[in-house]
Amino acid sequence: MDIIVVKPEATDEEIRHIIKKLEGLGLAVQVSKGTEVTVLGVIGDTSKITEETDDAFRAIPCVESVMRILKPYKLASREFRKTPTVIKIGETTVGGKRICVIAGPCSVENETMMLETAKQVKKAGASFLRGGAFKPRTSPYSFQGLGEEGLKYLEASRRKTGLPIVTELMDPRDIEVVEKYADVIQIGARNMQNFRLLLEVGQSRKPVLLKRGLSATIKEWLMSAEYIMSRGNHNVIMCERGIRTFETSTRNTLDLSAVPVLKKLTHLPVIVDPSHGVGVLEHIPAMARAAVAAGADGLIIEVHPNPEEALSDGDQSLRPEMFKKLMKELAPVARAVGREI
Amino acid sequence: MDIIVVKPEATDEEIRHIIKKLEGLGLAVQVSKGTEVTVLGVIGDTSKITEETDDAFRAIPCVESVMRILKPYKLASREFRKTPTVIKIGETTVGGKRICVIAGPCSVENETMMLETAKQVKKAGASFLRGGAFKPRTSPYSFQGLGEEGLKYLEASRRKTGLPIVTELMDPRDIEVVEKYADVIQIGARNMQNFRLLLEVGQSRKPVLLKRGLSATIKEWLMSAEYIMSRGNHNVIMCERGIRTFETSTRNTLDLSAVPVLKKLTHLPVIVDPSHGVGVLEHIPAMARAAVAAGADGLIIEVHPNPEEALSDGDQSLRPEMFKKLMKELAPVARAVGREI
Amino acid sequence: MDIIVVKPEATDEEIRHIIKKLEGLGLAVQVSKGTEVTVLGVIGDTSKITEETDDAFRAIPCVESVMRILKPYKLASREFRKTPTVIKIGETTVGGKRICVIAGPCSVENETMMLETAKQVKKAGASFLRGGAFKPRTSPYSFQGLGEEGLKYLEASRRKTGLPIVTELMDPRDIEVVEKYADVIQIGARNMQNFRLLLEVGQSRKPVLLKRGLSATIKEWLMSAEYIMSRGNHNVIMCERGIRTFETSTRNTLDLSAVPVLKKLTHLPVIVDPSHGVGVLEHIPAMARAAVAAGADGLIIEVHPNPEEALSDGDQSLRPEMFKKLMKELAPVARAVGREI
Amino acid sequence: MDIIVVKPEATDEEIRHIIKKLEGLGLAVQVSKGTEVTVLGVIGDTSKITEETDDAFRAIPCVESVMRILKPYKLASREFRKTPTVIKIGETTVGGKRICVIAGPCSVENETMMLETAKQVKKAGASFLRGGAFKPRTSPYSFQGLGEEGLKYLEASRRKTGLPIVTELMDPRDIEVVEKYADVIQIGARNMQNFRLLLEVGQSRKPVLLKRGLSATIKEWLMSAEYIMSRGNHNVIMCERGIRTFETSTRNTLDLSAVPVLKKLTHLPVIVDPSHGVGVLEHIPAMARAAVAAGADGLIIEVHPNPEEALSDGDQSLRPEMFKKLMKELAPVARAVGREI
Repeated sequence: MDIIVVKPEATDEEIRHIIKKLEGLGLAVQVSKGTEVTVLGVIGDTSKITEETDDAFRAIPCVESVMRILKPYKLASREFRKTPTVIKIGETTVGGKRICVIAGPCSVENETMMLETAKQVKKAGASFLRGGAFKPRTSPYSFQGLGEEGLKYLEASRRKTGLPIVTELMDPRDIEVVEKYADVIQIGARNMQNFRLLLEVGQSRKPVLLKRGLSATIKEWLMSAEYIMSRGNHNVIMCERGIRTFETSTRNTLDLSAVPVLKKLTHLPVIVDPSHGVGVLEHIPAMARAAVAAGADGLIIEVHPNPEEALSDGDQSLRPEMFKKLMKELAPVARAVGREI
Repeated sequence: MDIIVVKPEATDEEIRHIIKKLEGLGLAVQVSKGTEVTVLGVIGDTSKITEETDDAFRAIPCVESVMRILKPYKLASREFRKTPTVIKIGETTVGGKRICVIAGPCSVENETMMLETAKQVKKAGASFLRGGAFKPRTSPYSFQGLGEEGLKYLEASRRKTGLPIVTELMDPRDIEVVEKYADVIQIGARNMQNFRLLLEVGQSRKPVLLKRGLSATIKEWLMSAEYIMSRGNHNVIMCERGIRTFETSTRNTLDLSAVPVLKKLTHLPVIVDPSHGVGVLEHIPAMARAAVAAGADGLIIEVHPNPEEALSDGDQSLRPEMFKKLMKELAPVARAVGREI
Repeated sequence: MDIIVVKPEATDEEIRHIIKKLEGLGLAVQVSKGTEVTVLGVIGDTSKITEETDDAFRAIPCVESVMRILKPYKLASREFRKTPTVIKIGETTVGGKRICVIAGPCSVENETMMLETAKQVKKAGASFLRGGAFKPRTSPYSFQGLGEEGLKYLEASRRKTGLPIVTELMDPRDIEVVEKYADVIQIGARNMQNFRLLLEVGQSRKPVLLKRGLSATIKEWLMSAEYIMSRGNHNVIMCERGIRTFETSTRNTLDLSAVPVLKKLTHLPVIVDPSHGVGVLEHIPAMARAAVAAGADGLIIEVHPNPEEALSDGDQSLRPEMFKKLMKELAPVARAVGREI
Repeated sequence: MDIIVVKPEATDEEIRHIIKKLEGLGLAVQVSKGTEVTVLGVIGDTSKITEETDDAFRAIPCVESVMRILKPYKLASREFRKTPTVIKIGETTVGGKRICVIAGPCSVENETMMLETAKQVKKAGASFLRGGAFKPRTSPYSFQGLGEEGLKYLEASRRKTGLPIVTELMDPRDIEVVEKYADVIQIGARNMQNFRLLLEVGQSRKPVLLKRGLSATIKEWLMSAEYIMSRGNHNVIMCERGIRTFETSTRNTLDLSAVPVLKKLTHLPVIVDPSHGVGVLEHIPAMARAAVAAGADGLIIEVHPNPEEALSDGDQSLRPEMFKKLMKELAPVARAVGREI
């Protein structure tokens, strides 16, 4: 259902013009004449009305505003699927009672560091290994990742530890190589509205971890999930990683209220990235605990064996012993909200 | 210490001019000539240099930028007081091991509802009663509060329940009447930079609950605490209540990372207001739990016996039974982070 | 008119409950049952429904959302007054064909600098003199203004130059002294929602220059104008001075689109403050020209005879010769949009 | 040059550790010991220090902060090229004295509408034709553009009118087909940090119109230009199109101060898109005039022969007669700032 508000000065003829257009789309219209405005309630299968149709109605001079009542996403909505989606990956799941923890370095730097990190995060209780082989970098002069070589190191680490791998895809042309090694394909915040990339992973059979864009509303983020799902891949994990605000004491503002909001709107699992969310090492544990208490299904955390030598994100990577300590702190918080870790 | 960056095209004479000005202020200068810019490190008691002095230096044409390294607040800083401030109010404390919960309606509406709410929140475990008698309202046509009459109802409720009272001051001319009834004086978000009001409560002996402004940085918020403290009142409670961002699915964006950030920068207690922070009833419990897990010293929560008849904030007020349920959920979360409630 | 969207699972009884409440308020209700939601169109004198009433309806569990169609401000609206308000102050006007320019230092520092600046800005074509005697400062340790002494210097400058005076009021207790000297009372950005101060100037006979708050929406800003007007003072000048965003290369983000938006919504004059809007000296002239081209009725610009000695805002104050040059540049732009300066 | 601030509690050994690391990178260090902090000024060719190196230094526990003084972009900077870049495209230029106007529909819908629009905007004085064949759409269910068919219609319009074509590239796999038809390749706001796409157009010989991302700082935007330039394509046109803020009365907040800021930082031409910038039809002309007055080198404006039938952006497309009127209004504004149109 849509609501069209017509300006007080609109003539009857102008209103009839709008009604005729709506009826031409197979819709019924209910007119409510108030003293100051006239409101047209549009009834029928308004799913045919895209946002573009709304915009076209807004172009009619006597239209004051057009309000959309129904949600623009379908497959991602709670109405479409009432029970939470639980994604099975290897031996583990995302979205179930157990909180999943994805840990590892920002970038894959070499085989040794990758394997060492994998072993340590596994021992501390992580259930997935993260690491970037293709790195989106603000500067063209920064380290851009090892490419397929990095993916091979990830695979070697998986072989040794059994941890499934989460790694980023930046370019639709790399889909085959990334699919070959990854257990979960990550779409980064800056690519949340790279629609061609979304359609590409929508055709993949690998689950997709979809990070929220820096200035994406929750509705837009769900529309990006809908893009992926519309191509048949329903295994999407939503990942809150901080939004851009005016505050400068943290790198981004971690919007933890996105967790309960999403839990209401969608059946998809929701995880939180406190590392990028705050971007300040010492505040990551507090926000990880808060995420679990808010109801997140998981966490993704940067861990590096030697942050001051890291090729990227050194300032927000936990040392293995800090990660181990954090995992211990998280257990009672998880239990306090009826989960386990 | 301050850093002044001088443009590459600056002449020696121009640089000497700056150095002379700094030396005139009793400061020493260390010059570092790089290939592209010259950097002046200002050494000495730079606490004399206000932001206005910085601005005046920026007005010198050859100055590229002026960076301030020291924090502009003193009394509020961790450096000034290494141990956390614990504020004693009646039988209870804010900032200690026990998490304080302040509960009650947005506005005081009448004596009966006030007393009923007081009894219910007390029974559920709240340690303070909130309620507004002077209400800052966006519209001049909205209910503006009962004034002193409302304060009397609060007092009556305190008499019956023993709960200390938190209530808002909007106007320096009301300080005497508010001080007469309040145990804690609240400064609302929209008055966080009402500097005259801050100076006024700075002279009060009552503790002050200072809400964060909608678009205030944490640094500015601490400067407002500093205003209060500079007049002698060191009992300031910082209250995160959500900041303004582009997201519309919540009323504000609750910035829970402010909790660990403040815990590092200041010795003052930090509490969280999830009611205004999200403004959507069903998401308040999740954010309350998250606030406790993030390390908050307390919560302030709107509770109304009959929200659909509330004169204000009906949509974000918990019913007493919801509040009771929330208090039960919070207990294990508090224990999980080494606190009690 | 209001629109209430009811959840699909609402029972007939629940819907009747809402309708009864609305009818109890003397309103008629038109029900539109769609396949997915039911929409209630509320007809009648909805001006009685405040935002608090809306919030109370939102508290009803089966209500999905409440949308308000009518504007919450009245006196400030174009509907209330179709022709633009032109405010006469001394020999000059604000809101007429001629673009008014208000110029002067951030703070009144002493009599000599004040008089010197007044003479220079007058010669360059300014029609008002600005200068702060009561200064809202982020830090309690910064220069807070000269108080009444400063107002006297302003008066002396007016006597010598004939320029009417614009100066800020921060505290309702200072209204008498400020009214005694000021021709226009300024309400600063940080006090845009200091509602008691707004009511105070609402009772004054002096025109009020109302700056936009750092994170105020245009609707909220108009509501603050409505506060002033609701007390009888209809001479309000809206002043855009930049909003807070994530961008750091300017002090604020000057929202020039506020000019045409306000011109459509309100009959009040609209001026622009490029000095605070960008906060970077060299970009002020470009934004002043853009403001005039966008349709602003005036400008308020900081001018200081010697910015590098200024007690405040040195970095964004034009030197008198720069101001003179800017005034010359503005003339053809004003003519290009059918105005004069 | 970089500045590293070391915490007051740092030991001499810890400071020596940092200095050694810096010297290992071939850099010299100047130590300034203040009473409260120690500041290390890093001298030498700091262009080798990427942001990742900075982050790694931040990971050292005794480091308080790392400040970068030099700009992270080179080829895009004014220091690299002192004179403005003027890009020659067909018979016309971007960045010269004449303000370029790019006009046309949001999407190419069919051959007739495309040609009709082209003729009309040409007659009104536009120098480029815009139209999208590949459309980035928030919803997967919206019209996604005609693809190559749409490009052919653009080509047909160019043949008839002589207007060079600006059209968007969304996917690196489409570069060849887009290059075949386009005179200027547009990178949309949502792809501003699609780094693989940037590298792709960096290898093209066609000029690139780079829109600012919704939440991109000016520095990040210039880094994206640097990506393109680093691959050899120096013909980049910066296009301000509004940023995302809390204000809802316009679709985005058009940041016109980006025009003078960019003019200072870069030699690249800067144009403005008022259509997406405000997204409200009636405010577009005011913002177009303001953009020219602020010093923009051009405008890109959506024009549609029949907005209420438009397949996209109907609500922000000017009708041809409105565009014609706007072009007439712009001429005197351009002259007022020493330009022509």
